[in-house]
Amino acid sequence: MNETRYDWLSDRWVIFAPNRLLRPDNYREHKSYPIASDDSHDTNDQQCPFCPGSEDETPEAMLVLRTNPKTPWSVRVVPNKFPAIQRLSDPVPCRDGLNQVAASTAASTEDALFMRKQARGGHEVIIEAPTHVQSITQLPADHATLIFEAYQQRLLHWRSVHAMRYAVVFKNNGADAGASLVHSHSQLICTDFLPSDVLKTQRRSLEYLQSHGRCYLCDVLEKELQAAQRIVAQTESFVAFCPFASRLPYSVSILPKRHQAAFEECSPKELAEFTRLVQHTLKAIEIEHPWAAYNYVMQTAPLDAHNPAAFHWRLKILPRLIKVAGFEWSSDCYINTVLPEQAAEALGRHICCMPHNAKASLPQTHHA
Amino acid sequence: MNETRYDWLSDRWVIFAPNRLLRPDNYREHKSYPIASDDSHDTNDQQCPFCPGSEDETPEAMLVLRTNPKTPWSVRVVPNKFPAIQRLSDPVPCRDGLNQVAASTAASTEDALFMRKQARGGHEVIIEAPTHVQSITQLPADHATLIFEAYQQRLLHWRSVHAMRYAVVFKNNGADAGASLVHSHSQLICTDFLPSDVLKTQRRSLEYLQSHGRCYLCDVLEKELQAAQRIVAQTESFVAFCPFASRLPYSVSILPKRHQAAFEECSPKELAEFTRLVQHTLKAIEIEHPWAAYNYVMQTAPLDAHNPAAFHWRLKILPRLIKVAGFEWSSDCYINTVLPEQAAEALGRHICCMPHNAKASLPQTHHA
Repeated sequence: MNETRYDWLSDRWVIFAPNRLLRPDNYREHKSYPIASDDSHDTNDQQCPFCPGSEDETPEAMLVLRTNPKTPWSVRVVPNKFPAIQRLSDPVPCRDGLNQVAASTAASTEDALFMRKQARGGHEVIIEAPTHVQSITQLPADHATLIFEAYQQRLLHWRSVHAMRYAVVFKNNGADAGASLVHSHSQLICTDFLPSDVLKTQRRSLEYLQSHGRCYLCDVLEKELQAAQRIVAQTESFVAFCPFASRLPYSVSILPKRHQAAFEECSPKELAEFTRLVQHTLKAIEIEHPWAAYNYVMQTAPLDAHNPAAFHWRLKILPRLIKVAGFEWSSDCYINTVLPEQAAEALGRHICCMPHNAKASLPQTHHA
Repeated sequence: MNETRYDWLSDRWVIFAPNRLLRPDNYREHKSYPIASDDSHDTNDQQCPFCPGSEDETPEAMLVLRTNPKTPWSVRVVPNKFPAIQRLSDPVPCRDGLNQVAASTAASTEDALFMRKQARGGHEVIIEAPTHVQSITQLPADHATLIFEAYQQRLLHWRSVHAMRYAVVFKNNGADAGASLVHSHSQLICTDFLPSDVLKTQRRSLEYLQSHGRCYLCDVLEKELQAAQRIVAQTESFVAFCPFASRLPYSVSILPKRHQAAFEECSPKELAEFTRLVQHTLKAIEIEHPWAAYNYVMQTAPLDAHNPAAFHWRLKILPRLIKVAGFEWSSDCYINTVLPEQAAEALGRHICCMPHNAKASLPQTHHA
C-alpha cells in the first residue's frame, strides 16, 4: 500500500511506492541506451510490454486513438501497472483528507511531526506508438499530434473527477531521466493533494496578476520576443525559448503566445502546430546532444478553483546533461553550466537547417 | 564571469558558471567507476590533480592538516579552480546587493522579470587524503576526523567574513552524484545570498520554536529514539536515522542528540565520535549498495543573525540509487521506493556485524 508522508521542515510531501521497485527496467543491464536511428522503428521488441501482441501485459486501455480506422491502435493509454499513487477504486484504510486539512487538524505534536496519509488519484501510461520507437521525433506529425490529443482527453477526464487537485503529464526519456522502458511513452499522475511547490507557484502567479493586472508569463513572453536572445523557434501561435533562469542546461519552455490557462483548451489546429514545434525542438536537442536523456512536463491550469487569468500553460523540456549534486540537494539552488542565450542559439541553428522547409513553416525564427 | 539569476515564479536563484564545463572529468569515459577495495589506496594516480606531486595543479592551499608532523599533508583545502561562485577578491562590475534587496528595489518590470546579480563568496575543495582513495571509509579514523576538523576551520573562517550568508560543505561521490574526480574530496560553497529553500527552512524552524518552545529536530529526535523504527546506529552523543519523509531511498541524517546549532561547536572528542558514526554509516551504505553514488551535505547554523535555539545542525547522506524524473521536476514532490523503516533495518544490520567491535563502540544500536 502506497503512503504519502510530509516533511514539515522542508514543507514537502513525499510519495512512498515500494511497488515501483518491481517494474521492469530495460536500462538496468545497458547503462546507456542510444537513441535509435530513424529507420529502426519497424522492429518490434518481443520482450517489450508496450509493443503490439503484448497488450495483455498492461491493464486494459482506457483510451485508444488511431491515425486511421484500420489500425488496431496508434496511441494507447493504460493504468500504470506499478502506480506511484493509490487508485481511486482501491480501498483506503484511513484518510486525513487534503494536506492543508491534515496539517491544521493534527491531534498531537507527534501527528504533526509524522504526518502521513493515503493519497489517491491516478497514474497512467501513454504508450505513444505501436512501433518500438524511442523518441516522438521518429513519428510522423499526425501521429505525434495524437499523443498530445490523448494528453488533452485524459486531463479533461481528471478535471471532471471530484476532489482531484493536481494533474501533470510528463515524459522520462532515457535512463538518466528516470525511464525504465525504452519504448516511447509518457505518464500522467493525478493527485488529491497539491504539492507545496505547485501551490507556491500558483500563489505567485496570482500575486503577479493582482499587482500588475497581467499574467506573469504573458509579460515574460513579450520581453523575450522583443529581446530575441533566448528564442529557439516560433510558429504563429507558439514560441519555444530557453528560460532566463533555467536550472538545467538546454532547458526549453514552449508556450502559447496568447494567454491560455489550460493545455486542454488548444484547438485541433493549434495542437498540430504545437506538436510540430515540440518535435522540431526535441530533434534539435537530439542533434546537439545525441544520447541525451530528457524529461518534459506539461504544466496546465490547476484542477481546482483558480483564476484562469493567472495561469499560462507551458511544456517544459529538461535535458539531463548534468547531475544534480550536493550543493543543489542542500539548497535547491542550481548551478547551470550553459547560459540560456547560448543554448537557444545552438538549438535554433538546428531548427533553421532542418528539412521540411523549417524556416518557412516556423517563419519567425530569429536570433540576436 | 559567473552570474546568478532569479526565477521569480519558482522563487529560485540559479548560478550560471560556464567555466565549470572546463573541469576535468574522470567519469566522462568510464561511466561507472567502482569503489576501490580497501587495499587499493596505496597507488597514486599520476594524472590525478589531487595526488601528491600534483600540488601545483591546484591553487595554493589555504589550510593543511597533518595526522603527524612528518607528513607533508593529510588534508589539503584549496580554492576550487573552476568556482561556481565569484571569488570575493574578483572585481565585480555591478551588484544589486542581497536578493531581498534586489527584489524590492527593482526599478522596472523588466528588472523584476530578469533579475540578475554577481553573487560572491567562496568555493573550496577539501582534498581528503594524499592517497588516491575513493571513499573516506578507506581511511583510518584519526585521518577521517581531520577532514571534519578542516570543515570546522573553513566554516569558522567564512563565518567571520563580512556579508556572507550561506555556507555549506558537501560531498559528491560517484558520477551519478555529480562528481567529476574520483580522488576522495568534498567542497565548500559560501554565498552572499540565502537560497530561498534555505530561508524557508530557517523560517519554519523559528516558527516551530516560537509555537512549541522547543527545537523542531530535538522533538523529532526524541520521538525517533522512542519509536526506534528508523534508527540506523547511535553513539553516546550522536544518532544516525532514516528520516520519516526522506526524498531518496536509504537517506540517513546524522545529528547530535543534545541541541547544538553549529557543527563548528563540536569539541574534538565529539568530532572523533561523530566521524566514527559517519564512517560506519557510509560503510553500511557501501555494503548494501556496492557501487552506489551518494552526496552528503553538512547543514550548519546560518551565518548571519539567527536564533541558535531554532537551528540543529545535521549531516544528510543522500544515496543516488534512483533518478529524479519528470514528476519530481514538475512538482518538487518525490516518489521514494524504499520505506525509511526498511532502509534503517537494512543499514543497521551491517553496522551491528561490522568489525572494530561495532556493537560495543556504538552501544545503543537497536531496532524495533
